[in-house]
Amino acid sequence: MAYEADDDLDAGMDSPHLPKSDPAVGGIAADRLRSVIERVERLEEERKALAGDIKDIFSEAKSAGFDVKVIRQIIRIRRQEPAEVEEQETLLDIYRRALGM
Amino acid sequence: MAYEADDDLDAGMDSPHLPKSDPAVGGIAADRLRSVIERVERLEEERKALAGDIKDIFSEAKSAGFDVKVIRQIIRIRRQEPAEVEEQETLLDIYRRALGM
Amino acid sequence: MAYEADDDLDAGMDSPHLPKSDPAVGGIAADRLRSVIERVERLEEERKALAGDIKDIFSEAKSAGFDVKVIRQIIRIRRQEPAEVEEQETLLDIYRRALGM
Amino acid sequence: MAYEADDDLDAGMDSPHLPKSDPAVGGIAADRLRSVIERVERLEEERKALAGDIKDIFSEAKSAGFDVKVIRQIIRIRRQEPAEVEEQETLLDIYRRALGM
Repeated sequence: MAYEADDDLDAGMDSPHLPKSDPAVGGIAADRLRSVIERVERLEEERKALAGDIKDIFSEAKSAGFDVKVIRQIIRIRRQEPAEVEEQETLLDIYRRALGM
Repeated sequence: MAYEADDDLDAGMDSPHLPKSDPAVGGIAADRLRSVIERVERLEEERKALAGDIKDIFSEAKSAGFDVKVIRQIIRIRRQEPAEVEEQETLLDIYRRALGM
Repeated sequence: MAYEADDDLDAGMDSPHLPKSDPAVGGIAADRLRSVIERVERLEEERKALAGDIKDIFSEAKSAGFDVKVIRQIIRIRRQEPAEVEEQETLLDIYRRALGM
Repeated sequence: MAYEADDDLDAGMDSPHLPKSDPAVGGIAADRLRSVIERVERLEEERKALAGDIKDIFSEAKSAGFDVKVIRQIIRIRRQEPAEVEEQETLLDIYRRALGM
């Protein structure tokens, strides 16, 4: 079986990638590893919840008659510097005209 | 200039995509649109902060001597059902052997 | 070692996930598995080469004085239906005015 | 309408972002811009076709009884250096044991 514990893996416990471990594999490094993993998992849960909240707001906006794609574009524009937005829009107009669009 | 206000755009305010608007464009629908956008922006900020926190934990783990790529793999495994993990690892062994890897 | 061949894995060769295998693991199913993998790898190589070609064209365009971000936007617009583009741009104008942008 | 041609945009044709343009907007720069866009669009088409081909191979593999997720993992492993793969698998075993997984 893959990932089965082999006796000779104990040697690896002194690896630089599992710091301050003890032979019982229940020591400080294992605790630290577990803490890292659990903290990341908790934060990932929160991120997922926020993503759900954002999705709900957009669903609600759509039900209220707004165009979600355009709202996303507005949010993208608000993230940029106004001068940059204006320059890009001017260029977009120029390129479109050059292409006859 | 693109996106400049034209008088004839006021007609568009009765569009189903900007509900309950008033001629002054400062009415209920504009407030609602602004509320949608600001709530999403706030939640996006929080998501970004969480992403930063996760990055910090991984940096700290790396400094402590852990292999971040392997920790990510552990987190991926923990998200799956144990039976599914075991089945996939068994198949991986079989496929590797079949390929002489 | 992980993924090492164990004798009892041979039983798994009759699994539905490695079809028509023979005990020598060098039979038809292994050949087929290898063929699947090598064809995918070849196509992935081609995709990577195309991505490189696209990047080169954009680099060249940038050197010629074009704004790459705006060119990408043009390409995105050309992918959409003209009526859809026009509707979204009208809505974008309306939303921006409603927000005083 | 947004992106409508205004007379005063002609001034912008001397912008560094539309090189070697002529007043008719049909000159060299427009041709060059069009060429850039059409070449990228063609390459994007090819990439899309390749993505379709890859998807077809995986569908075919699935129909033949293979586990597509595991095949993808095999391909990922083959992309890495064998020594790196082995090191990561050893670490994965160690971390799992430390966590009692």
